[in-house]
Amino acid sequence: MARRSRRREKPPFKQLPWRQVVNRYSPIEPLDEEQIEQIHDASMKVIEELGMVFLDEDACESLRKAGADTDKDTQLVRMDRDMVLEHVAKAPAEFTLYARNPAHNLRIGGNVINFSAVGSPPNCSDMDHGRRPGNFEDFRNLVRLVQSLNIVHMIGGHPVEPIDLPVETRHLDSVRVFVTDCDKVFSAYALGRERISDAIDMACIVRGKTRDKIKSEPSFHTVINTNSPLKLDGPMLRGLKEAAEWGQCIVITPFTLAGAMSPVTLAGALTQQNAEALMAIAYTQIVAPGTPTIYGGFTSNVDMKTGAPAFGTPEYTRAELIGGQLARRYKLPYRSSNVNASNCVDSQATYESMMSIWGAVMGGCHMMKHAVGWLEGGLCASFEKIIVDAEMLQTMAEFLEPISVDEDSIGIDAMRDVGPGGHFFGTAHTLDRYETAFYEPMLSDWRNFETWEETGSVTAERRANKIFKAVLAEYQPPPMEATVREELDAFVEQRRREITTIAAA
Amino acid sequence: MARRSRRREKPPFKQLPWRQVVNRYSPIEPLDEEQIEQIHDASMKVIEELGMVFLDEDACESLRKAGADTDKDTQLVRMDRDMVLEHVAKAPAEFTLYARNPAHNLRIGGNVINFSAVGSPPNCSDMDHGRRPGNFEDFRNLVRLVQSLNIVHMIGGHPVEPIDLPVETRHLDSVRVFVTDCDKVFSAYALGRERISDAIDMACIVRGKTRDKIKSEPSFHTVINTNSPLKLDGPMLRGLKEAAEWGQCIVITPFTLAGAMSPVTLAGALTQQNAEALMAIAYTQIVAPGTPTIYGGFTSNVDMKTGAPAFGTPEYTRAELIGGQLARRYKLPYRSSNVNASNCVDSQATYESMMSIWGAVMGGCHMMKHAVGWLEGGLCASFEKIIVDAEMLQTMAEFLEPISVDEDSIGIDAMRDVGPGGHFFGTAHTLDRYETAFYEPMLSDWRNFETWEETGSVTAERRANKIFKAVLAEYQPPPMEATVREELDAFVEQRRREITTIAAA
Repeated sequence: MARRSRRREKPPFKQLPWRQVVNRYSPIEPLDEEQIEQIHDASMKVIEELGMVFLDEDACESLRKAGADTDKDTQLVRMDRDMVLEHVAKAPAEFTLYARNPAHNLRIGGNVINFSAVGSPPNCSDMDHGRRPGNFEDFRNLVRLVQSLNIVHMIGGHPVEPIDLPVETRHLDSVRVFVTDCDKVFSAYALGRERISDAIDMACIVRGKTRDKIKSEPSFHTVINTNSPLKLDGPMLRGLKEAAEWGQCIVITPFTLAGAMSPVTLAGALTQQNAEALMAIAYTQIVAPGTPTIYGGFTSNVDMKTGAPAFGTPEYTRAELIGGQLARRYKLPYRSSNVNASNCVDSQATYESMMSIWGAVMGGCHMMKHAVGWLEGGLCASFEKIIVDAEMLQTMAEFLEPISVDEDSIGIDAMRDVGPGGHFFGTAHTLDRYETAFYEPMLSDWRNFETWEETGSVTAERRANKIFKAVLAEYQPPPMEATVREELDAFVEQRRREITTIAAA
Repeated sequence: MARRSRRREKPPFKQLPWRQVVNRYSPIEPLDEEQIEQIHDASMKVIEELGMVFLDEDACESLRKAGADTDKDTQLVRMDRDMVLEHVAKAPAEFTLYARNPAHNLRIGGNVINFSAVGSPPNCSDMDHGRRPGNFEDFRNLVRLVQSLNIVHMIGGHPVEPIDLPVETRHLDSVRVFVTDCDKVFSAYALGRERISDAIDMACIVRGKTRDKIKSEPSFHTVINTNSPLKLDGPMLRGLKEAAEWGQCIVITPFTLAGAMSPVTLAGALTQQNAEALMAIAYTQIVAPGTPTIYGGFTSNVDMKTGAPAFGTPEYTRAELIGGQLARRYKLPYRSSNVNASNCVDSQATYESMMSIWGAVMGGCHMMKHAVGWLEGGLCASFEKIIVDAEMLQTMAEFLEPISVDEDSIGIDAMRDVGPGGHFFGTAHTLDRYETAFYEPMLSDWRNFETWEETGSVTAERRANKIFKAVLAEYQPPPMEATVREELDAFVEQRRREITTIAAA
């Protein structure tokens, strides 16, 4: 009986079924071919004449062997344009990312867009408890939202930094939550070889595969940010190498804020973005030709009065679109983001996000990072923003669906039956289709003002608060075999002991 | 001294200068050519076989003379497709709308987008006084905001209905405010011949032109909504005729809510929109060939649970884009709208508006109605939403600006000077450009969370409240010669007497 009544209950929230989102539209291209070639040529000059510092002895050595001009003292690496382009060309245009649940495998490339959750904010917030530093409980709840929301395709890094966990072993607990509370494609941080190596082992355990097998089945992605301008840190380089050697997906993303870490002009910032991205991508292909690699764009501008980064600006949206043009120039999958600089979930957070989402989608991106939950220029993960973003992404996904045009759908006979001044509500043409004709929102409230007021004048933000709690209340962990779980836990505890022992020694 | 200190004060709000916004991008086209031809062909069948009721004897007579099949009893009018297309082809693809201030003349057509203010809500609201029925004071304040905000190109109808004014003479007071408190292109309601005729006379007075001159210089626009499905009301038809005979701009907009006033499918609703629009446009050209006419699209869907209209949905955005394809099919300027169904200024209002704005812009629209201030599916004008919308439109206008790519803007020398790991803030390349490099927002707050919290955690909506009041406090009426003002007032009072006398008789 309990089961039956439960089944009868209305679901606490409605959402679209899981699917990969396909973008059938041609991208919007702000620059013409000649302008793109100008930026290409300028970035080749940057690579040849200025170069980038690779803060890792071993990376410099590999690059030197591959023909780059490397300076032993400064670790400045310059490459010939033919060399860069030859290696960049080895990166695949399309590939698959493998999830623990094969139904959640993701195609990267072509005209598919994947939405990944917010990554790396130090704080999180919700309307009930306000803004607070990240902790492991919030971390888990955010991962569970990612699992429950069908429109979110993948983990995008720590959805909030669990600062109550020790730094040295934090990755073990984090990845374990990624692969137990969630069965979607996950993410690992390239902070040295070890963390990536542990993530590979954990992916092997939960996917029941050997390291050799996983080499051709990338099972997570890692983001490599250049330390713009023109610098790549040692730990990132070592993590990159480990991931590339084991065939995992690498997202190269220069952080080129115009006016701060790159020239104040869009043309200059994008030239630098392109130079940095291509040098790092060339390195991934030197480490392991064919490594699945994504060209990331993150160029935005700063507020020239305060130096604060701005997002979802006209400049940001244009940079997203041009970033897509550049990625296509090199036949590389493209990563962009859903970002904003607002301090709370309000109109600003929403319009800046919408400018970002449209720029990413019409820029032809294949991976939209921070697609749900990002606030404050990335310093905070908002539980309510996750729901607002999920609604916007669902709207976009439905917008991108194909449209049927045929005699049946046009329905001239229905118009004839209804006649001038009539009403279509009760017609067979309507009744046959009304249940699936339109997108049914998760968050939007279309009732009239009077009804809305009588029921408490609940704003979208407050509705989002209710919805995320309903989603968490209904959360069910994806199934995992007991033996797999035991093996995973044993691995985590063994590695924890090893790391703690080394740290204590 | 007072003057000097005043000059030193910071402006209460920042905005972009007045300009016509040019859209350099190719439109997004959801349907292929064949599908557009299917919708065209189906709408021709609707025109030929089903027809539309023209609830006006005189209109039926003109249409009959032009070759239409008209039924005297039902006033149902059917036209041959050749006849419709022949007349539609007489409407100009581009024209100019003349404002009282020539600097505010507007090009309609080509790749120019014009933003017009919210029209016709019965209610208005702000955070200080809540939601209330429209009145003349709020009406004036809304018109003054339209005048003060450079991004708003034109009046879009009564920004709120001033229900404290008598219905019969309301248009005299309304148009007088349009042409005195504002010097942008205005709007008049086609509710019978008389109101349009009065608007023509008032346009003549303030522009210092004769009726004959104004015939070739359209000085206002009027929206003709079909009473969907397939019906056009008498007062609208008589207003349309007066406006067409005197060369004023006519915006034909069927109100085809899918599932209610049109088929539940997008293909069906758009077929009906197209049929209704083309029949009405053909009639304008039969009345006066060459009348500046705009193809309006307003197809959206209803909430199938409540029958409430929904806006800014995936269906709405697709209808906007396809509406643009159809308008281009007939070489007609295109009208779309910035609409949402939220009951307050919140995330929902903002994301639904953003879906509408992107659909309108990428649909290649030339006139975006309700571009600022619309809330509640059109039942309320919000003072705060005007500012949120103005910010979104400014962002879009800046996004559409061309991008300079040359050696100078790319700035490789700046990158060389800064070097790896350096900072661009202090470089000459930055200092030379920083003041104009980026869009400076009107509403967005990019300060960090701590500063924002210390200064009161003011949301975008509350900042919008402050901004609209600052704009109104700084409002200056555009200059008007005393003799013109006298002539205008004399006309208004004479017409008021005439109308009141007739009504009393």
